[in-house]
Amino acid sequence: MAVPEFRAIGLTGMPMVQSGDDLAAQIIDAATRQGTPLAAGDIVVITQRIVSKAEGRVVPLDTFVPSPFALAYATRWEKDPRVVEAVLRESKRIIRQVGPVLITETHHGFKCANSGVDASNVGGEGLVCLLPVDPDASCRRVRDAIRARSGIEVAVVMSDTFGRPWRLGQTNIAIGVAGMLAMRDYVGKADLDGHVLRVTMICDADEVAGAAEMVMGKLDAVPAAIVRGFPYQPGEGSAQEIVREQALDLFP
Amino acid sequence: MAVPEFRAIGLTGMPMVQSGDDLAAQIIDAATRQGTPLAAGDIVVITQRIVSKAEGRVVPLDTFVPSPFALAYATRWEKDPRVVEAVLRESKRIIRQVGPVLITETHHGFKCANSGVDASNVGGEGLVCLLPVDPDASCRRVRDAIRARSGIEVAVVMSDTFGRPWRLGQTNIAIGVAGMLAMRDYVGKADLDGHVLRVTMICDADEVAGAAEMVMGKLDAVPAAIVRGFPYQPGEGSAQEIVREQALDLFP
Repeated sequence: MAVPEFRAIGLTGMPMVQSGDDLAAQIIDAATRQGTPLAAGDIVVITQRIVSKAEGRVVPLDTFVPSPFALAYATRWEKDPRVVEAVLRESKRIIRQVGPVLITETHHGFKCANSGVDASNVGGEGLVCLLPVDPDASCRRVRDAIRARSGIEVAVVMSDTFGRPWRLGQTNIAIGVAGMLAMRDYVGKADLDGHVLRVTMICDADEVAGAAEMVMGKLDAVPAAIVRGFPYQPGEGSAQEIVREQALDLFP
Repeated sequence: MAVPEFRAIGLTGMPMVQSGDDLAAQIIDAATRQGTPLAAGDIVVITQRIVSKAEGRVVPLDTFVPSPFALAYATRWEKDPRVVEAVLRESKRIIRQVGPVLITETHHGFKCANSGVDASNVGGEGLVCLLPVDPDASCRRVRDAIRARSGIEVAVVMSDTFGRPWRLGQTNIAIGVAGMLAMRDYVGKADLDGHVLRVTMICDADEVAGAAEMVMGKLDAVPAAIVRGFPYQPGEGSAQEIVREQALDLFP
């Protein structure tokens, strides 16, 4: 049996991304400059933040005129009412609102704190970073642009840092996918004893995002990584494969 | 800036683990035979299943005489009443019981389906696999035995495959830790713009377990892996760092 192995490689030397930037070109250049040029079959993992920046989703806080509800909530918990307003507009629904904690479902169906709205690390005061409008489409664009520029076929995963209801600490998970299936399906497969497996689907995209985080960190300017050697399943793929429909959700 | 990189390497050629086996010796041998001998600073990731097997936690189902509650529930949902009884005895409490789905909190505080009780892939009929009694202690024993046999200082993570309340598919997470901190703490740290970070703690142990799963899979006999090159924080560490106290839990 061949030894299964993959490498996760952080991309150093990426520029501070600005609105309108060509992420594909920046990724190709950064990978080449550090001596690990992109190769066919790589998964390119990009953080939500650089995609949001490139796509103009870092917007002035003053865009958000607080509703009376946002204002009252912000006052009570000493939040910026414009940030609260931004969170509400980015939300399909509020899942839990306990003290200052706001757990929401985004319009994409992701369940997380504050709908991913972030006033940290956005490149200036008075700005707020929103999630990309369609993270799968963003990933497809980067994948297509890498192919167009270099002829190299990669998969792309967009990662973000989410908390978990039942476990402390956060991990990176996938909010966008292109060129690979998000899930590895074991339905009906038999284990070593011939039993049909209890485990039915492994979320490859989330494990890939978490592995990439290990070479990104939070303080250093490493907003992209390559996962090389992992035998993902090529295909259309979508982070929507991972979103639980509310009807299936035991914890609405 | 040095290029951040780690490798995840599956250990092929591990034997089918039996009760009483010396996992440390098997891991050292398998790593050496396949040409990737253990090295200082490696994280050795071991699946819950081989630890449970080595520690005699694969037990006859007939050990579990069903209570009237277990019997009624099993009959209604066409389950094996002995398995239901095993799940209940492994549980501190039932979190959700919806149709045939039983989400529980284990005596360790892990929140998962069926308290991790598994009748699949346990090496025979009429057997059931229970989680180790003290997974942190199991990890410490393997770490100490690797040091004693080889002089090599590694960290050890025990992984298991858990579902997530809000995301479809399963991922591997950590249920035991030794020799490294489970969490990477960013409390009070500033981001690139000088803002104090929104993200405060990354769960390294869970990301490591997920990365290792990518070289393990479910059907092949790869029950252990090496994560090499990841700059974890050495220390006592414990999977208890990851367990949410019920009082902190927004989703009891």
